[in-house]
Amino acid sequence: MTDLTTIILAAGEGTRMKSTTPKVLHPVGGLPIIGHVARAAREAGSSRIALVTGPRHQMIRDAVTALEPNVLHFEQSVAKGTAHAASMANAVYQDAQGYIAVVYGDHPLLRGINFRAVLDRLDAGLDVAILGFEPKDPTGYGRFITDGDTLLAIREHKDATEDERRIRLCNACILAFRAEVFRDLIDKVETNNAQGEYYLTDLVGLANSAGKKVGYGLAPENDVMGVNDRSQLARAEALFQDVRREDFMKAGVTLRDPKTVWFSWDTEIGKDVTIFPNVVFGPGVSIADKVEIRAFCDIEDAVIGEGASIGPFARIRAGAELGRDVHLGNFVEVKKSRIGDGTKAGHLSYLGDAEIGTKTNIGAGTITCNYDGVNKDKTIIGNNVFIGSNASLVAPVSIGDGAYTASGSVITEDVPADALALGRARQENKDGYAPKLRERALAKKAAKGK
Amino acid sequence: MTDLTTIILAAGEGTRMKSTTPKVLHPVGGLPIIGHVARAAREAGSSRIALVTGPRHQMIRDAVTALEPNVLHFEQSVAKGTAHAASMANAVYQDAQGYIAVVYGDHPLLRGINFRAVLDRLDAGLDVAILGFEPKDPTGYGRFITDGDTLLAIREHKDATEDERRIRLCNACILAFRAEVFRDLIDKVETNNAQGEYYLTDLVGLANSAGKKVGYGLAPENDVMGVNDRSQLARAEALFQDVRREDFMKAGVTLRDPKTVWFSWDTEIGKDVTIFPNVVFGPGVSIADKVEIRAFCDIEDAVIGEGASIGPFARIRAGAELGRDVHLGNFVEVKKSRIGDGTKAGHLSYLGDAEIGTKTNIGAGTITCNYDGVNKDKTIIGNNVFIGSNASLVAPVSIGDGAYTASGSVITEDVPADALALGRARQENKDGYAPKLRERALAKKAAKGK
Amino acid sequence: MTDLTTIILAAGEGTRMKSTTPKVLHPVGGLPIIGHVARAAREAGSSRIALVTGPRHQMIRDAVTALEPNVLHFEQSVAKGTAHAASMANAVYQDAQGYIAVVYGDHPLLRGINFRAVLDRLDAGLDVAILGFEPKDPTGYGRFITDGDTLLAIREHKDATEDERRIRLCNACILAFRAEVFRDLIDKVETNNAQGEYYLTDLVGLANSAGKKVGYGLAPENDVMGVNDRSQLARAEALFQDVRREDFMKAGVTLRDPKTVWFSWDTEIGKDVTIFPNVVFGPGVSIADKVEIRAFCDIEDAVIGEGASIGPFARIRAGAELGRDVHLGNFVEVKKSRIGDGTKAGHLSYLGDAEIGTKTNIGAGTITCNYDGVNKDKTIIGNNVFIGSNASLVAPVSIGDGAYTASGSVITEDVPADALALGRARQENKDGYAPKLRERALAKKAAKGK
Repeated sequence: MTDLTTIILAAGEGTRMKSTTPKVLHPVGGLPIIGHVARAAREAGSSRIALVTGPRHQMIRDAVTALEPNVLHFEQSVAKGTAHAASMANAVYQDAQGYIAVVYGDHPLLRGINFRAVLDRLDAGLDVAILGFEPKDPTGYGRFITDGDTLLAIREHKDATEDERRIRLCNACILAFRAEVFRDLIDKVETNNAQGEYYLTDLVGLANSAGKKVGYGLAPENDVMGVNDRSQLARAEALFQDVRREDFMKAGVTLRDPKTVWFSWDTEIGKDVTIFPNVVFGPGVSIADKVEIRAFCDIEDAVIGEGASIGPFARIRAGAELGRDVHLGNFVEVKKSRIGDGTKAGHLSYLGDAEIGTKTNIGAGTITCNYDGVNKDKTIIGNNVFIGSNASLVAPVSIGDGAYTASGSVITEDVPADALALGRARQENKDGYAPKLRERALAKKAAKGK
Repeated sequence: MTDLTTIILAAGEGTRMKSTTPKVLHPVGGLPIIGHVARAAREAGSSRIALVTGPRHQMIRDAVTALEPNVLHFEQSVAKGTAHAASMANAVYQDAQGYIAVVYGDHPLLRGINFRAVLDRLDAGLDVAILGFEPKDPTGYGRFITDGDTLLAIREHKDATEDERRIRLCNACILAFRAEVFRDLIDKVETNNAQGEYYLTDLVGLANSAGKKVGYGLAPENDVMGVNDRSQLARAEALFQDVRREDFMKAGVTLRDPKTVWFSWDTEIGKDVTIFPNVVFGPGVSIADKVEIRAFCDIEDAVIGEGASIGPFARIRAGAELGRDVHLGNFVEVKKSRIGDGTKAGHLSYLGDAEIGTKTNIGAGTITCNYDGVNKDKTIIGNNVFIGSNASLVAPVSIGDGAYTASGSVITEDVPADALALGRARQENKDGYAPKLRERALAKKAAKGK
Repeated sequence: MTDLTTIILAAGEGTRMKSTTPKVLHPVGGLPIIGHVARAAREAGSSRIALVTGPRHQMIRDAVTALEPNVLHFEQSVAKGTAHAASMANAVYQDAQGYIAVVYGDHPLLRGINFRAVLDRLDAGLDVAILGFEPKDPTGYGRFITDGDTLLAIREHKDATEDERRIRLCNACILAFRAEVFRDLIDKVETNNAQGEYYLTDLVGLANSAGKKVGYGLAPENDVMGVNDRSQLARAEALFQDVRREDFMKAGVTLRDPKTVWFSWDTEIGKDVTIFPNVVFGPGVSIADKVEIRAFCDIEDAVIGEGASIGPFARIRAGAELGRDVHLGNFVEVKKSRIGDGTKAGHLSYLGDAEIGTKTNIGAGTITCNYDGVNKDKTIIGNNVFIGSNASLVAPVSIGDGAYTASGSVITEDVPADALALGRARQENKDGYAPKLRERALAKKAAKGK
């Protein structure tokens, strides 16, 4: 495959987002928009990826470095147009071989195959190939002025004649060049336009004038949607989700109501998994076969073993690892804990920083008291343990295999295997005392009323 | 602006709702339908608003008085048609100057600008102006019989000829008149129709006969949708929500899945707020900038400070006030409580009638025991307090700044600043006792089986 | 009514479902697909229903027996086509009088009236009547070759000419015959087709050749949708839900957002019930009049009395019976319990295997400790009881009328009527001790850091 260098442009301000977060850092499917673009560039085989951002965009650079450490960063300190922005990456393309692609960074649904659509045209002999698409409503997009397969120019909507506005084929978001052609032409772009900016799309005309072969590839409209405001962000998210939902159903996952299950870009789900309505998957979730997830669950950064049964109303997060046939029921939260095969926690529990063995029963209302205000400590629970309801397990604490803790106990010290631990007061009944309490409460109310 | 008197008609029974609640009291966006109409009338500049209800409608009068205390109430004791209903408000319009508008009370999406569409026509010289619209399907609506800009008559669907039924322009829900024209004509309406009722729409013909200038204004179809059954109520709610969602996104709020966030008519949300799927806002919510609300939250009657992080699975209600950077996590309920800046309650807690300072940590499973069966008492918690997990705080009780309560404690008495409070039994381990408990349980089961 | 014998074919493997569960056992509206078909057959008046399944389908036979005990089972051990499958039920149809209907088992939205559409044609004198429909996109369906009202043949899509493919009328999923005609023809079907299988649709041609009168009935497209993969399963579920939602709204139920309420096939709901967004009804739910169900509830196998107020965030299941005006609030689970009129459990509670009287108050955080690791025991609570917050009620235990349990108590023994029960430790304050705990925690952290 011919070597490919990709320049991602993300220097715009994105003011229509009305956000202090740069536009390309808003997430789609749990991944920042720019992350999707960088992934697509990598998928397309880019050996080097350059990212051009604006002067106030350290936040973008940091986020991209965390996601894609090999991306090279360049700053466009003054906004002088897209061609000027691309030229900031001169250090990368000056010695680039093969192809150079320039792509706009605000296209969260872009995939490797969209790059291929133009790179294939270069492979077929073109010098320049621009990605086009046919939007349902072309208003606002640059139109492709073509002569047969040749792309003569890209006409901005506002500069287009009535006739030209009837053209359906529009400019998408990837421009691909033979490296030497790009290098020859990029510095020839001029600013003879209303904005006084250097336009990348002018390369089309320049290439034609230089006798180069210029054409185009095509993309489905959804793949190349750009995001400029929060409505478009929501629409991109919806399109992203619909694709994921359809893919999972095809692969053998039952979604009772697909529109009410939200995936992340990296969600992994096995076969014969059933997901009820209203389940949210944050990033980092992997689910094995034959799991059932009931309604109203929120799951992120978790591994769930085969045959597990989750929810309704379960919250799983931050490095949870659940074994086979684990059951987590309603109003149960699991954080940074390992739970062994066949263990059950059915009701109203918080399990944090815990390591729990197999076939253990966690009673309703169990709480691991894992925080002392400064440190997070561990709760270790063995196999076949029975934790009675409403237990407070004060970490660090360890409960041995086969042990039993009495309901309502506060467990502050280790419990040996097979021991019974009690940590609760003895009950005392005061006969006939309840009516007195009621009288007292009513008297108090009367006093307040005065 | 010319003086405006508005008469709202709400005397109908609304039997298709199949409800013991009068139709106009069913809510849209958390506000009764009639409340939306009264707000629109007020927005349009009405100096006086009269409401005509039926004999069994005290419930409507009470509800409207609570929402709009200045509305004047009239009763139509026998259902004799819309003109008869309007004439019940005679005491209001007999000395009215300027304009009189009559509007049907079952139109929840009506806005001030819909009134303006007809009032502007009066300003332009007409004597009578009726609000019209072009429904996608005009079946059932009264058709506007026009001659140029002149409205000659309103023909009921059932009385219309084939040709007339092809007319797209239909009667909406507001009729506007110069006050003296209305007064002259309202008593001239007769009952020569199939139902034997006095029809308000007959004023159009009467005005033309009297040589008055009669015309119309226009409204978008969605604005003037009427509600007659629960399907239409659901549709009105959906339209209402879609407008709110779009408005919030334009203003800089991220809605991950807009269709799964439900607002009330008075919800206020700042910039750079992110709302995950499945969040319900009841009436009375105000949210500052940079708040994050995760999935599955139910929030009503609450003020949430800048930078707060809420949910998933949080329930906030009844006069809650949350400071800056407060965190409320999963399965946490806050009721009628003030929570100071930077305080956190992450898990399975009920905070009711509490006043909590800043930077305090509320452990998992904390419950304010605020009710003695008669009174609701207060729990006061200071700054930098650490409430250990699974605490029962028995109100009235006060916990001083910097205090610490041990996990699993029942706190019945005040805790001084910087004190440690314990209220729990000491743990006891009985070695080797768990297997005996298991044997006993199995023996019990065997005995049951017999 | 003429006697009817119905043969349901469910011997296919349904490999496109990618499931170890047979296709016809996947549920729609909480009932397996095959259950919907059997119900429709029964609704149509079938005196006998035969089910033909494949050799690895014991699971289907067991599930159908549980749902419809009178269905007779037959096995097709080798897949030789639909006519061969139907002939497996020879023992049922050999002496059948009246009509025989053969229906495909993977049609979850089928209703009795779809059978009537063809049976009525037999009543009108036809010998054979096939159910047809006009799909929006007929690609893939067998086309009806007709001559006036006579059905000459059913042409498979792949065998059809260009002209025939333009035919809109397609084969649905029910074939009905006079019993003797079916018996005469079923063994005459041959395998002269590409697959070498016995096709049931060949009976159309055979009947025409034998001089029989062959025609068709019609069904709406939605009623006869088949399910072959999980996308179609999701679509069937959506269509099923939309019908239920519309029916309930017509009957006087308010659904704030209909698309976010999910019913089961057997859900029963009274009048003037209001359901907020995001409520899931599993099978076996019956709800009386004037109930309010707030957002985020999951309810199955439960009876809820008039005027009850449920949620948000309530989970009710497994044989719960709630009296009039019961209130269950957020993060409350009720399982296999009876709760008397006017009783309230507002927050963070688990009530399992309980019997609770009237006008009792269950404090926040109450947990019935109903499980000892082997047995489930009962908690009996009387009328007008006050259970203080954060109680652990260790079953079997009984609390008498008017009794009062102190907040944070572990109740292990019966409480007499009107008694006050306490089971908690006394509080102790250690002045100035909190800063020491903090220092210790910080020191521990520092030590870890080393």
